[in-house]
Amino acid sequence: MQIEIVAIGTEVVTGTTVNSNAAFISHKLLEAGYRVSRHSVLHDDPTTLKEDLTTILNRSDLVITTGGLGPTHDDITREVLADLFNSEFSFDETVASDLSKRYTNLTSLNDQATVPSKAKVLINPLGTAPGFIFEQDHKSLICLPGVPAEMKAMFEKYVLAYLKERFNAQINTYRTEFNLLETSESEVDPFLRESKKQNPEVEFGIYPRYGTVSVHLWIQSNDKNEALRKLNAASEVIKSNFGARFFESASGSIEEAIHLLFNEKNWKLSVAESCTGGTIAARLTRLPGASNYFQGSVVAYSNSWKENFLNVPTKLLTQHGAVSEEVVKAMAKGLLEKSESDFVVAISGVAGPTGGTLEKPVGTIWIAVGEKSGEIHAWKLHRRGNRDIIIESAATISLGKLYLVAKGRE
Amino acid sequence: MQIEIVAIGTEVVTGTTVNSNAAFISHKLLEAGYRVSRHSVLHDDPTTLKEDLTTILNRSDLVITTGGLGPTHDDITREVLADLFNSEFSFDETVASDLSKRYTNLTSLNDQATVPSKAKVLINPLGTAPGFIFEQDHKSLICLPGVPAEMKAMFEKYVLAYLKERFNAQINTYRTEFNLLETSESEVDPFLRESKKQNPEVEFGIYPRYGTVSVHLWIQSNDKNEALRKLNAASEVIKSNFGARFFESASGSIEEAIHLLFNEKNWKLSVAESCTGGTIAARLTRLPGASNYFQGSVVAYSNSWKENFLNVPTKLLTQHGAVSEEVVKAMAKGLLEKSESDFVVAISGVAGPTGGTLEKPVGTIWIAVGEKSGEIHAWKLHRRGNRDIIIESAATISLGKLYLVAKGRE
Repeated sequence: MQIEIVAIGTEVVTGTTVNSNAAFISHKLLEAGYRVSRHSVLHDDPTTLKEDLTTILNRSDLVITTGGLGPTHDDITREVLADLFNSEFSFDETVASDLSKRYTNLTSLNDQATVPSKAKVLINPLGTAPGFIFEQDHKSLICLPGVPAEMKAMFEKYVLAYLKERFNAQINTYRTEFNLLETSESEVDPFLRESKKQNPEVEFGIYPRYGTVSVHLWIQSNDKNEALRKLNAASEVIKSNFGARFFESASGSIEEAIHLLFNEKNWKLSVAESCTGGTIAARLTRLPGASNYFQGSVVAYSNSWKENFLNVPTKLLTQHGAVSEEVVKAMAKGLLEKSESDFVVAISGVAGPTGGTLEKPVGTIWIAVGEKSGEIHAWKLHRRGNRDIIIESAATISLGKLYLVAKGRE
Repeated sequence: MQIEIVAIGTEVVTGTTVNSNAAFISHKLLEAGYRVSRHSVLHDDPTTLKEDLTTILNRSDLVITTGGLGPTHDDITREVLADLFNSEFSFDETVASDLSKRYTNLTSLNDQATVPSKAKVLINPLGTAPGFIFEQDHKSLICLPGVPAEMKAMFEKYVLAYLKERFNAQINTYRTEFNLLETSESEVDPFLRESKKQNPEVEFGIYPRYGTVSVHLWIQSNDKNEALRKLNAASEVIKSNFGARFFESASGSIEEAIHLLFNEKNWKLSVAESCTGGTIAARLTRLPGASNYFQGSVVAYSNSWKENFLNVPTKLLTQHGAVSEEVVKAMAKGLLEKSESDFVVAISGVAGPTGGTLEKPVGTIWIAVGEKSGEIHAWKLHRRGNRDIIIESAATISLGKLYLVAKGRE
């Protein structure tokens, strides 16, 4: 089965936007047992787009396009596809009524609700541009919007179910995933190679995330028991070596593991951030229900904030500097006193690119985890990379430290 | 001139890796005046790779490939290209001597130094896989490694200079970009259409970002004055309608505009966040040098934090609820009193998916901007979308409100 993903949009061809949509779709399709053959990225140019889509449709069974469905003059995907499939346009009452329910005075309502008659329409739950499915000669073409959140929502809502129904001869894929704290790709790799030797039919993917590593194992098979047995054997090789560093998280993120643990235990968490600048709080609060356990974060970027909001003694700041064991512990202590929390995390470091010294180069990070009892643990670490990487990995590692301390109190 | 970018690698087709290389190359080429026609992503499969590259070479003047140049068994780009250009392989002393200088005991040295005789070799300053340039019938094919840091270093070092020498008849591209606050794609679109009618040679792109809109205009021309005149005319149509809502930002982000303004004016900024959960602070602090003006953020997620850290009266919280004009103004007032800031921003809202009521549905947001004088402005808005979209757009819009108030005090 030939499957192609096509991103349509001049902003993608010229590099203003990175084509992350194709990676998302390909990955989801692989999980569901469908292997993508090619990606293309094409301009919003009616002539070349029609030519290229004709070529792509001729050689494929399934084509998924993203982008070019909006109401503006550079969005021409609908017109080109209607032309390609010899379709008229007609006004769709369902789209119009959905849009008028969700938007008042939408100027583009009539445009968005006028759709190719031959296409099956997919309502967009998050935006204004509906998606489409065209079918012809046992081939399918699915058009999704280019905005990632809208594309993802519509992919999950419609596409997988549609594919299962229409392309049902696909082999089953069985999967399992692990997440590991405090390790690196190169530390895990030898165990994956060993496991691969013993279980050659199991496929592995290893995804480092600047501070944690996710390992995906999958096998394609029509024998479920056999598949699960092999997956289990393959994962045991890794489990036996990294047991204590496992964490549970469907998304692979450490914040999800903390979210689950703190919700289950009814614990309260507060945070004090300097170098991460709010990233720890922002990552925790992206998960719905964070308010059950997350109280707040003092993003104390300036020294005066560390004094005023966290009661860090001026003396410690002048004697040891903001990036020091003394200050990060004082941040945790101040926060324990000012917030009624079961656990607190404090972090201070040099995110760069400037501000580094010989003694404390860019990437130097101090992390403290405090407990209700008053006990405070602290760690120093050094991260390499640019500012974004240092901030993200410092956030991940401090959440990992919190997780390990909290897990130990279960 | 037809230019195509081809990423070679099964890990990209299956979505394990996002193809950021193509965006980087396209963007750099556009800056240099070369417009890319297409991107493709292909498997490491010799048969289909040879077929696809043949098709691509036939229709293009310049092809740039990334990936598949390593020493492992799945890296087959060199063999396929040697086959395509009827080239033998030979041992290259320059590559061998460079590699042996930088790596001791490199097991793949002989493989990496054995290169297609017909290709010009590009030494890789950061890794082990050299790049290549093949030339035939006035066409060029440039092969770069897939590791982004290596690809970028080699692109900067060799590719631009090579293109300038070989394709010197390239038409120049002139560009201008605008960023607009407090508007939507569909509000800007009619003016773009009008402008396009009057200036048909000017190309437009419009990029909404949940709360702001970036408009890119470009024109290809060999007459600089003429091009700038046309760009100017095209942009005037929009400028005259959205003048007050313009902001300056090379990246298009509103936080960059605030960063520039506050750095220039030596103003200090503090933030109080509830529903955005640290996202405002995190976005501001991603820019190096944020510590010059950004003091900190109180992420007061729970009501007790709003009382303890921002002095919000308990009575206001019980009478009006956390998402109210009274509370968001009290957050701003408390922060003005506790921090020595020229401006403060406070935000409180319902990010969802739960927590909405008939009176305050999911997406209800209150924003306050406070000034040193004690003056506090407040706005209510309603955002649609999922939790991520509501949080990101609430952060963007509140930064936009701050920008407009601060700009007014210039």
